[in-house]
Amino acid sequence: MLIVKKFGGSSVADKDRIYNVVERCIEDYEKGNDVVVVLSAMGKTTDGLLAQAADMNPDAPKRELDMLLATGEQVSVAMAAMACSAKGVPAISLNAFQVAMHTTSTYGNSRFKRIDTERIRHELDSRKIVFVTGFQGINKYDDLTTLGRGGSDTTAVALAAALRADACEIYTDVDGVYTADPRVVPDAKKLKEITYDEMLEMATLGAKVLHNRSVELAKKYGVQLVVLSSFDKVEGTVVKEVTKLEQMLVSGVTADKNAARIAIMGVADEPGIAFRVFDLLAAKNINVDVILQSIGRDGTKDISFTVNTTDLKDAVRLLEENNDKINCQEILTDENVAKVSVVGAGMQSNTGVAAGMFEALYGVGVNIRMISTSEIRITVLIDEADADKAVRAVHDKFLSED
Amino acid sequence: MLIVKKFGGSSVADKDRIYNVVERCIEDYEKGNDVVVVLSAMGKTTDGLLAQAADMNPDAPKRELDMLLATGEQVSVAMAAMACSAKGVPAISLNAFQVAMHTTSTYGNSRFKRIDTERIRHELDSRKIVFVTGFQGINKYDDLTTLGRGGSDTTAVALAAALRADACEIYTDVDGVYTADPRVVPDAKKLKEITYDEMLEMATLGAKVLHNRSVELAKKYGVQLVVLSSFDKVEGTVVKEVTKLEQMLVSGVTADKNAARIAIMGVADEPGIAFRVFDLLAAKNINVDVILQSIGRDGTKDISFTVNTTDLKDAVRLLEENNDKINCQEILTDENVAKVSVVGAGMQSNTGVAAGMFEALYGVGVNIRMISTSEIRITVLIDEADADKAVRAVHDKFLSED
Repeated sequence: MLIVKKFGGSSVADKDRIYNVVERCIEDYEKGNDVVVVLSAMGKTTDGLLAQAADMNPDAPKRELDMLLATGEQVSVAMAAMACSAKGVPAISLNAFQVAMHTTSTYGNSRFKRIDTERIRHELDSRKIVFVTGFQGINKYDDLTTLGRGGSDTTAVALAAALRADACEIYTDVDGVYTADPRVVPDAKKLKEITYDEMLEMATLGAKVLHNRSVELAKKYGVQLVVLSSFDKVEGTVVKEVTKLEQMLVSGVTADKNAARIAIMGVADEPGIAFRVFDLLAAKNINVDVILQSIGRDGTKDISFTVNTTDLKDAVRLLEENNDKINCQEILTDENVAKVSVVGAGMQSNTGVAAGMFEALYGVGVNIRMISTSEIRITVLIDEADADKAVRAVHDKFLSED
Repeated sequence: MLIVKKFGGSSVADKDRIYNVVERCIEDYEKGNDVVVVLSAMGKTTDGLLAQAADMNPDAPKRELDMLLATGEQVSVAMAAMACSAKGVPAISLNAFQVAMHTTSTYGNSRFKRIDTERIRHELDSRKIVFVTGFQGINKYDDLTTLGRGGSDTTAVALAAALRADACEIYTDVDGVYTADPRVVPDAKKLKEITYDEMLEMATLGAKVLHNRSVELAKKYGVQLVVLSSFDKVEGTVVKEVTKLEQMLVSGVTADKNAARIAIMGVADEPGIAFRVFDLLAAKNINVDVILQSIGRDGTKDISFTVNTTDLKDAVRLLEENNDKINCQEILTDENVAKVSVVGAGMQSNTGVAAGMFEALYGVGVNIRMISTSEIRITVLIDEADADKAVRAVHDKFLSED
């Protein structure tokens, strides 16, 4: 069997944890499996490098940021290969150049185009455990790129697809996907399985268990994922395309506090304005979520939407620089907002979920500022300070066992 | 003019020093020059990584050590490019893959085979300052290699040769080459110029100003080097092929405390033994220096020689593993030894230097344990504790102005 395993930063934060990871890999190796291991940077390395870079140049070129950040995973894989070799098991570390993991040209938020498998297969054939740098790739200029936060999950899925792996295991510091964040909702339950689409809505919305692009890729290539704990040997959550026998109405409640609201005030009430705004942002790879457009009056209207807090500065600058195309009177921003969502494949055939969610929020006095929905998700934008309270109330409504 | 500049670890140890380096590069850039900058890892980064690796696996595979160490320079060049960009000057960082700096396969102590210049020239043509990772290369397997301690000097010279640069400037934390280490000999004088051969003897013997391979390469390709201070703007030392008008008898006195003595006791007194020993060590890239072979008696003899302290463990293990070929009775080692040398092109035509050196050492009570000479150098092996005293005495004899 060919198994791709992925361990995040907290799972390789220090020597003992790296040895723990290596031992789990050796167990599978010694059963005769081929083992490919994707690692993130150790502990808080990426944050540390980002802070150093911000100190050096608050507006550092993204190309150079990626060059800098890519060192983090290279350290992890070299360390893991050393640990593996200390255990008497042959191992090798490979970076984005060595595997040849080709991505689009975009720095900081790149996507895989093609992964060469020759080198990895060669190393597996000589019975080595292969440690591969997560999070990074190379583009057509031979420059290093990174896949955005949590990109190592995507590396694992892309490798599993390219290698036609028999299993793709994502090890994290939680032991599966829960109906809500257990730190916020003490009676949150672990899901045995979840569909790609549900996971995708959860991932996009801040469940932080899996990188959303990794789930998209897994769905596209039919890679069955398992989310497991790096520390405890307990059953995890399987992410797959499945028709559940007993489909739950709601699978989970998530909160995303990494949201900021931008309001573009007083633009002309004419067609095409919204397109121009979102096209500008899309061209710079800034994801826009929950959108609200006011009803025009006095010939003007307002457009509000959310972006990731990390994109806020770039988005506002971009809008200001291009105000000749938009002609707004004012741009307002608010970082103290959060998105709270309910996700469930069962919602497709049940109309009562939205009403139940609004009732639950009303019951704890949470004011809803904006709403957005998909076939299997309802998201509300609320004050950040209300987020935990809102999650508990909504979880209570749909997922409590009492 | 195309200028290659090299800055060592202490010159890029923190943000302020990186900005200092960047400003010196921009000065040359703004005069219209093409500027290529080779950087070492920041401050004590390499030592830190080595310590982490030793903790992970005291006997880590060298391939993985190089994979790990190579991250150090990549951080430096990315940081410098960010700083340069903050100063409004376009810059780009390139690592061993991106330049394509091809080396031999040996890990930890590799040599350049070929450096591609296309990417660097392309970046120079778009008027960027190009920051290149020192110390590292890639081998035919696409694996990262390192050039051994101080290898960034070699990177700079190899790049200068490949690019046919007009100047190659090596910036260090001293402001040139001195007749002795000024910390040991207060009245040591800075040399205005020195020949490749003299520098080579000094470098090999621990003057620590230039990596010896860089001087070999510079001699081979006729690259004129200047050794300069990163911090003070004063005239440095030029290293070149020159017939000095007033050739000094002795150019410098050096001490190398990084030496260990190995004595192979009681081998058969027959031809070929010494060859077998040194061939074994050469095959593992262990450099052997000062050699002494005892006169045979009772059919056996002893062979003593020095290696770098860092190679001692490997050398002894290698000898023990192959004792079926050597058949010695015992292997003794001593790390508390130092090599002290006088170097001078003028020694070729003057026979009094050896006598003068021995007299000076006798005068301060230093016992000479082994001797080795070349055309322009005399080296003695002494107790490490006597090293500084010996350097001062020999410097006093030949180089003092009084």
